[in-house]
Amino acid sequence: MAANLRLFGSVVHLCKRHAGMLQRYCSNQSQISEEVQKLLSLKEQLGDARPQKFQLKTPKGTRDYNPRQMAIREGVFKTIINCFKRHGAETIDTPVFELKETLTGKYGEDAKLIYDLADQGGEILSLRYDLTVPFARYLAMNKINTIKRYHIAKVYRRDNPAMTRGRYREFYQCDFDIAGQYDLMIPDAECVKIVAEILSELNVGDFIIKLNTRLLLDGMFAVCGVPEDKFRTICSAVDKLDKTFWEDVRSEMVDEKGLAPEVADRIGEYVRLNGQLELVDQLMQDEQMMKNKMARQGLEEMKLLLTYCQLFGVLDKVSFDLSLARGLDYYTGVIYEAILTTEKVQSDGGDKNEPVGVGSVAGGGRYDGLVGMFDPKGKKVPCVGVSIGIERLFSIMEAKAEAAEGKVRTTETQVYVASGQKNMLEERMKLCNLLWEGGIKTELSYKKNPKLLNQFQYAEEHGIPFLAIIGEQELKDGVVKVRNTSTREEETFPRDKLLEEIRTRVGPS
Amino acid sequence: MAANLRLFGSVVHLCKRHAGMLQRYCSNQSQISEEVQKLLSLKEQLGDARPQKFQLKTPKGTRDYNPRQMAIREGVFKTIINCFKRHGAETIDTPVFELKETLTGKYGEDAKLIYDLADQGGEILSLRYDLTVPFARYLAMNKINTIKRYHIAKVYRRDNPAMTRGRYREFYQCDFDIAGQYDLMIPDAECVKIVAEILSELNVGDFIIKLNTRLLLDGMFAVCGVPEDKFRTICSAVDKLDKTFWEDVRSEMVDEKGLAPEVADRIGEYVRLNGQLELVDQLMQDEQMMKNKMARQGLEEMKLLLTYCQLFGVLDKVSFDLSLARGLDYYTGVIYEAILTTEKVQSDGGDKNEPVGVGSVAGGGRYDGLVGMFDPKGKKVPCVGVSIGIERLFSIMEAKAEAAEGKVRTTETQVYVASGQKNMLEERMKLCNLLWEGGIKTELSYKKNPKLLNQFQYAEEHGIPFLAIIGEQELKDGVVKVRNTSTREEETFPRDKLLEEIRTRVGPS
Repeated sequence: MAANLRLFGSVVHLCKRHAGMLQRYCSNQSQISEEVQKLLSLKEQLGDARPQKFQLKTPKGTRDYNPRQMAIREGVFKTIINCFKRHGAETIDTPVFELKETLTGKYGEDAKLIYDLADQGGEILSLRYDLTVPFARYLAMNKINTIKRYHIAKVYRRDNPAMTRGRYREFYQCDFDIAGQYDLMIPDAECVKIVAEILSELNVGDFIIKLNTRLLLDGMFAVCGVPEDKFRTICSAVDKLDKTFWEDVRSEMVDEKGLAPEVADRIGEYVRLNGQLELVDQLMQDEQMMKNKMARQGLEEMKLLLTYCQLFGVLDKVSFDLSLARGLDYYTGVIYEAILTTEKVQSDGGDKNEPVGVGSVAGGGRYDGLVGMFDPKGKKVPCVGVSIGIERLFSIMEAKAEAAEGKVRTTETQVYVASGQKNMLEERMKLCNLLWEGGIKTELSYKKNPKLLNQFQYAEEHGIPFLAIIGEQELKDGVVKVRNTSTREEETFPRDKLLEEIRTRVGPS
Repeated sequence: MAANLRLFGSVVHLCKRHAGMLQRYCSNQSQISEEVQKLLSLKEQLGDARPQKFQLKTPKGTRDYNPRQMAIREGVFKTIINCFKRHGAETIDTPVFELKETLTGKYGEDAKLIYDLADQGGEILSLRYDLTVPFARYLAMNKINTIKRYHIAKVYRRDNPAMTRGRYREFYQCDFDIAGQYDLMIPDAECVKIVAEILSELNVGDFIIKLNTRLLLDGMFAVCGVPEDKFRTICSAVDKLDKTFWEDVRSEMVDEKGLAPEVADRIGEYVRLNGQLELVDQLMQDEQMMKNKMARQGLEEMKLLLTYCQLFGVLDKVSFDLSLARGLDYYTGVIYEAILTTEKVQSDGGDKNEPVGVGSVAGGGRYDGLVGMFDPKGKKVPCVGVSIGIERLFSIMEAKAEAAEGKVRTTETQVYVASGQKNMLEERMKLCNLLWEGGIKTELSYKKNPKLLNQFQYAEEHGIPFLAIIGEQELKDGVVKVRNTSTREEETFPRDKLLEEIRTRVGPS
């Protein structure tokens, strides 16, 4: 019994310690961190102890780009950057991770898709989820009130990847945003223009840019009888219309979100409308709508936006669409979404979870409140911008290149220095150096005594337009033989004229 | 007592459960994950409940790039990429994170600096620490035996940042590597050439590229009497010679690493040697050295490398330096390190922990075993490469731009469309669109009725070379006034000749 009691005592002691720890868990963050670290390191040890089954792969939802893909990617970037620069944009860059608190409260339900970094002591960090929130943080931090900037960088989302459709966990965003207090709809229209220019120049088929405004949406909800506290949740139900049928959206509104059926039906009447200036005029005849201040203002803004789109020559690319809602919370005015319309048919239809709407390749809108969320005094900086969904465009361009079967050059080499004789390595190196110093893109074989035929083959396979060939005789005569890879014609030039002759053949680099 | 026993029973039950859980902790990883998740989510809840003290900053050791810095950064990249392309390199890209196990066992002691991602279920991931290990993983995964590629991307190290010296936790690496089975020292010499070209073209002052080989180092250690199992640890002591004095390195070898004092002293004789081909010849007279196979082979390789450097016209930029060791484990042959020599004097000297050697701006070497670590059958792919320390170069270029006080243009806008009259917005937009469609980089004020003087000022401040000015009269006459921003000269052209006239003035874009 005494032994039992001693045991009892030590057991109670253990339990008390455990209970005390649990209590501290709830009141002491750093202790939790510590415990988590202990468990993690325990786990790591276990991991190391097990026989290592080596996985040779990139992480789920990510990919490498090979040189061919990079060549295509660079082409797409060039088109996009040219467009941004044509519109006078500067560029900035921000770190790939932010303090976790910077991202907190900006993405609504999507926040669960944020990648967190491990707590290794120090700050709590997360990978950026988009480029808009870091941009807003940048503006507030540097007290910038006006800027027109683009930012092309990778963002991270722990989403369900669908890589054949160009949806990854690590993917590029190409953002163009205009910050500043300006007159109504002028920068907003330029964003539409930019999307239209980029999609036209990339030549990815027909597209339509859907337009709407949050003001009009809210006004419409009010007119239909949606209680104000349900505006946002009904808005995100409407947002699903591009992916699912009205019946499902209606049932979400009525059954899940408790909207009266007749209210949902009234919404249903509106969200099937789309058009252009004539639709604005039609809605301006709608007395109910015009009585509501938000709806009236929204319609006036839409009219202005469409007028400016006409002046910018892109009216035939836009559609005022009352079903467009956009998921993110931070939009406050106009919203955009660009859809490829010819692509839809080629949708392979294998994945039943993703019915339509995979053609979305750009989106954006006005967010006048976001910067204020970062400013200590809540000072607002009005912003409007678009984001180009570049991965989807890459996939299309890749498929096009694949179909064309044309060779995509992955290097820019202009001359291959070659010799058919032995012991010419040093002379080849000297000639190579001459060409490099002259700014000519040049390669040579890294073999001491390569076969001439192999050198010819290399040049041909890599699309290198010229060979510079030397041997004993050429060295003695102070000349170099230049061979055109495709015509196989050969000419001989004095060595001191070589650079000049090559330059006239390859053009300015 | 009965009550006591009941209590005892339930306490024992609790403890058993606890003990059982602990046991499972050690045998069941997923359970640990789950517990960790629970604790983390608990922690998060606590975090959200506390009053938020908002920090408006980038994470420690990181920075934003403003448009001015981006303009400088793009200039540096352009020079470097041009050089890589001149040497026939392709480019690839890899994800910013890798499976943690891909990085495990590659970095020796530095592994503690790796950023891990939080375990949010799924794969265990880490941010890349360099571009070399992902490159090796890429080669093994795709069974690539020969490639010449460059890769410019950010890497991550939880190091002590020294941002005024250009040392960050997030920083760019610019890597150039040649993979393939080639003849001795030919690709190795091209890497030296590339570093010399880049540093010359960037115009960052004098520099020297130190050369050595691991083979010679190991041979020297053997000759001096270092036991073979101490080669690597003595090597990393030698590596500190660029940052500290011989006396300290000697004491690390003798006191910490248990080397015999006379052995250390023999090493001390060698590591103070540096030179060029004459040093190779001198060491080839050293009988002890020549008896050792590794040392002999290392010297022969160095002779070849220096000969090739001469052929490539960079012998005056290199120094064969027996104190060069390089920290990383994976090097197997030649090693390089480029040092700025004129920069050293301007070193601000504020940080006593960092005496000299901050001038290191490029490094690399041969690593013939790394790819084999990823291949299931251990198949080796010989590689050699260099990494340009671009952040340090940015800092220097930034300081130079600062000192020059010259305006760095951050946009490329060529024409600013302006008007001095009211109600010209729509006409300005139309003219702007005409110029955009013609490929001219054009901006306009986003105000409805901006003042003419403000528009002139905007053009002047942003270095926009021309204004296109319209008013009632110009519209009536079908002309546009073109104003040269710097000379203030104005010319008037028919509207249908405007594009042509502007193009001749701004040159090809």
